[in-house]
Amino acid sequence: MSMDIEEFRKAGYAAIDQICDYFYSLEEKPVVAQVEPGYLAKLIPQAPPQEGEKFEDIAADYQRCIVPGLTHWSHPSFFAYFPTACTFEGIIADLYTSAVSNPGFNWICSPACTELEVIVMDWAAQLFGLDAAFMNSGRAGGGCLQTTASESALIAAVAARNTFMDAHQGVRLEDLVIICTTQTHSLALKAGRVLGLAVRAIEVGPEDAYALRGSQLRKAIAEETGKGRRPFFIIATIGTTSSGAVDNLSEIREVVREHPDIWLHVDAAWAGVALSCPELRAQLLLDEVNAVAYSFCTNFHKWGLVNFDCSTLWVRDRLALTRALDVTPEFLRTKEGDAGTVTDFRNWHLALGRRFRSLKLWFVLRSFGVEGFRAHIRKGIAQNNVFVNLVEKSPYLRLAAPPSLALTVFRMVPGWTEEAKSVVEEPSVSSAADKAVTIAASGGVAESKTPNVLTRALWERLERRRGDLYLTQTLLNGVFCLRIAIGASRTQEEHVRRAFAIIEEEATAVAKELDI
Amino acid sequence: MSMDIEEFRKAGYAAIDQICDYFYSLEEKPVVAQVEPGYLAKLIPQAPPQEGEKFEDIAADYQRCIVPGLTHWSHPSFFAYFPTACTFEGIIADLYTSAVSNPGFNWICSPACTELEVIVMDWAAQLFGLDAAFMNSGRAGGGCLQTTASESALIAAVAARNTFMDAHQGVRLEDLVIICTTQTHSLALKAGRVLGLAVRAIEVGPEDAYALRGSQLRKAIAEETGKGRRPFFIIATIGTTSSGAVDNLSEIREVVREHPDIWLHVDAAWAGVALSCPELRAQLLLDEVNAVAYSFCTNFHKWGLVNFDCSTLWVRDRLALTRALDVTPEFLRTKEGDAGTVTDFRNWHLALGRRFRSLKLWFVLRSFGVEGFRAHIRKGIAQNNVFVNLVEKSPYLRLAAPPSLALTVFRMVPGWTEEAKSVVEEPSVSSAADKAVTIAASGGVAESKTPNVLTRALWERLERRRGDLYLTQTLLNGVFCLRIAIGASRTQEEHVRRAFAIIEEEATAVAKELDI
Repeated sequence: MSMDIEEFRKAGYAAIDQICDYFYSLEEKPVVAQVEPGYLAKLIPQAPPQEGEKFEDIAADYQRCIVPGLTHWSHPSFFAYFPTACTFEGIIADLYTSAVSNPGFNWICSPACTELEVIVMDWAAQLFGLDAAFMNSGRAGGGCLQTTASESALIAAVAARNTFMDAHQGVRLEDLVIICTTQTHSLALKAGRVLGLAVRAIEVGPEDAYALRGSQLRKAIAEETGKGRRPFFIIATIGTTSSGAVDNLSEIREVVREHPDIWLHVDAAWAGVALSCPELRAQLLLDEVNAVAYSFCTNFHKWGLVNFDCSTLWVRDRLALTRALDVTPEFLRTKEGDAGTVTDFRNWHLALGRRFRSLKLWFVLRSFGVEGFRAHIRKGIAQNNVFVNLVEKSPYLRLAAPPSLALTVFRMVPGWTEEAKSVVEEPSVSSAADKAVTIAASGGVAESKTPNVLTRALWERLERRRGDLYLTQTLLNGVFCLRIAIGASRTQEEHVRRAFAIIEEEATAVAKELDI
Repeated sequence: MSMDIEEFRKAGYAAIDQICDYFYSLEEKPVVAQVEPGYLAKLIPQAPPQEGEKFEDIAADYQRCIVPGLTHWSHPSFFAYFPTACTFEGIIADLYTSAVSNPGFNWICSPACTELEVIVMDWAAQLFGLDAAFMNSGRAGGGCLQTTASESALIAAVAARNTFMDAHQGVRLEDLVIICTTQTHSLALKAGRVLGLAVRAIEVGPEDAYALRGSQLRKAIAEETGKGRRPFFIIATIGTTSSGAVDNLSEIREVVREHPDIWLHVDAAWAGVALSCPELRAQLLLDEVNAVAYSFCTNFHKWGLVNFDCSTLWVRDRLALTRALDVTPEFLRTKEGDAGTVTDFRNWHLALGRRFRSLKLWFVLRSFGVEGFRAHIRKGIAQNNVFVNLVEKSPYLRLAAPPSLALTVFRMVPGWTEEAKSVVEEPSVSSAADKAVTIAASGGVAESKTPNVLTRALWERLERRRGDLYLTQTLLNGVFCLRIAIGASRTQEEHVRRAFAIIEEEATAVAKELDI
């Protein structure tokens, strides 16, 4: 050991103090790192040192070289992508986890790691109102922690593929097709790429608020089947990344019942944690999830107060998972595993070793309690409502899709006229490609001043010039939009109001520059 | 936030103190958790609390409920599986990482996360003497951090599959086959299961110290090809899990040259970190890796002083990786990514989000320096030599394969007679199945006292009765063996000597019990 226990105590205290300083000064920092590509190579050597260095120097270099190159996801003005949770409870749990440094693949590798995960996954299932069928205590289904929603979807796809291939002998991998929509997260395409399988993305549009309808799914399944393909895995989303759309599970439910051999995975990576609030369960289609999902995923590490990574995956049939993934050479056998009295989570995920992630989930759920967790979710939604009200009164900004929980998608339009308003609200316009979005013909606005051109100009100003907030962009069927994703735990209403003021300030500058 | 900054400072100091206490008392604890399956469900509620709880109570419950259920991988008498690193430098780096809670998938998500990983992977490549072709600075190949060797192998297999399928239009996934050996880690079978592809495990035996020969590989490729299958991915191992065998890359190199479209992945998950020592590079076939590997993996989180998880994967052709894995929807585009001036590591791994793992690697390499890192590796090997010398003088214990670095595989034999010795050393005996291992016919020992029976009896005693050391078992072609894997950073020679004394004490008890 290079550092002894007392040196660690000293260095540990100092690190805690530095982290306190970090959070005290967070709001004064730019949200997005203000460095150029390659900045770090100019600050640190290109080869490791031959002799060990003093830890004080290393810790000082963390502040000098690394912190300026961080984009601050816990900054109250971070509204990009989706929030990534960071709570002090999570940090301390991770600290204990690091000190244990335990790969936890078998029960005996640390009974506490496995057993706590078994229990807190059931806590989480209850928090969200998931059916008992998904709970570990029932021993038929169950849940465990994964790194990310991408990994959760990939694992579900593997289980689905094996189950389908077992039931349909002679089907070739080349025939299989994953079904999703054009609004499904890139995790669907990535699962297809990793597994080498085809992916059919059903086009969804503004007429359905970018949600999948049952009729579209039925048609796509028929089309794929007609081409000789075998749909085996459907990803439905509760809260899409681009606009927070909720696929119509009431309708999808009927279609899936006609095709019981197709595995329905519900990806609620971002929005799933809102199921903690009973008043949101109907709109988030909890009953349908409980009735029909084969697997369900949400990420506590987004809006759910637990530090990255903490993705939860539940399945209705744990054997479908373990049959697909179980590999047990002699060197991994244990008497408890052989006896079947314990869960060995190595057969529930892609890797062998796994981190002790349940501790941070346990700490957070206990420290906040169910009511505290709900209060956090409700706070994000209330703040988003403030933003939506401001947009609705803005001369330049317009909603591009219905607001969803704590997410709003908007764009810039050429000024607030009744004529322009009617045009941009027409679904067929929004669903057309970039070029067709021009309202020149009807609104008398030149091609160069279409909403897409304006919104891109606004985006460039925000991206290039403003370190004081961070948004990201998306495309909704060719319509270029900006997204504001609220829910970082330090964000208060004042930060949302300030964000709006900055956006409107830049929109006004764009309007002036382009003379609209 | 449930906890404010000053409450965090207090709780953080307390956690650091608890971790110091943990390490001070580590040696007094049993290595393996002394709990029964289901112990935790009796200690904590089955549902989350409605109201938040005080953090002192939560932290107290960590000590009360969780710590007794931990198996202590940092215990100096932990010799099971492979060591899992835990250094104070790694803990503190992870603490900073948790506080940043940054999913780092794109450069702009935190330039420091990406740029530090680019640089420290090159540091690590230099530490191990890897060819410049694998370095990020060369921009043709490159390296990045993964969770585990299983994930690294899976990613390499995906890149290999896509490259192969692109070059051979019309090949079906059903035709593809992954080639490994019966001694390859379960990661090969798991990659096959995840991807739905066939796996051919070539039988290797004691006559080659369980290493793959070129002639065996050539024959297997010919056999598979003859059956219409298409070998596209070979996993060669430097330091197998069961016995530390090193596949004969000098010979494999020639075979691979005859088949340039087959991707050679070298898995050195455990032993790779020993490449840091120049005197070990020839025996670990570094020149061959540099000449012929398409990808190479080793885990710092095993013997390499960096807390779990920290698996390094290098590839010779980064485009093979990113072509296979790149999915870029609008919401993930960035101006730096579009300009091609930065690396976006999301296209180098399975998930989208990724933890900031490079920080702990940076802290450890700086704190230890190249010489300190080498000293740690040499210490483990020296300690293993002590153990080997003790086994060689023991009346009951015998080596089951040549010792490898810091790993020794041994078994119990029916007493030290010249006759018994000659029998168990005969390769044909060891390579036969369990039943055939009996030396009853030649040695006059009853069937019930074969080395396998004795070793299993010894194993049961150690597994069931001894909390003061932790070993694991393996099978080498039907020969039941015990493994001692040295290399935990707190292990000293005295712990190795004590481990031997315990094993011999139990072996003596077995001998007495079975009257041999």
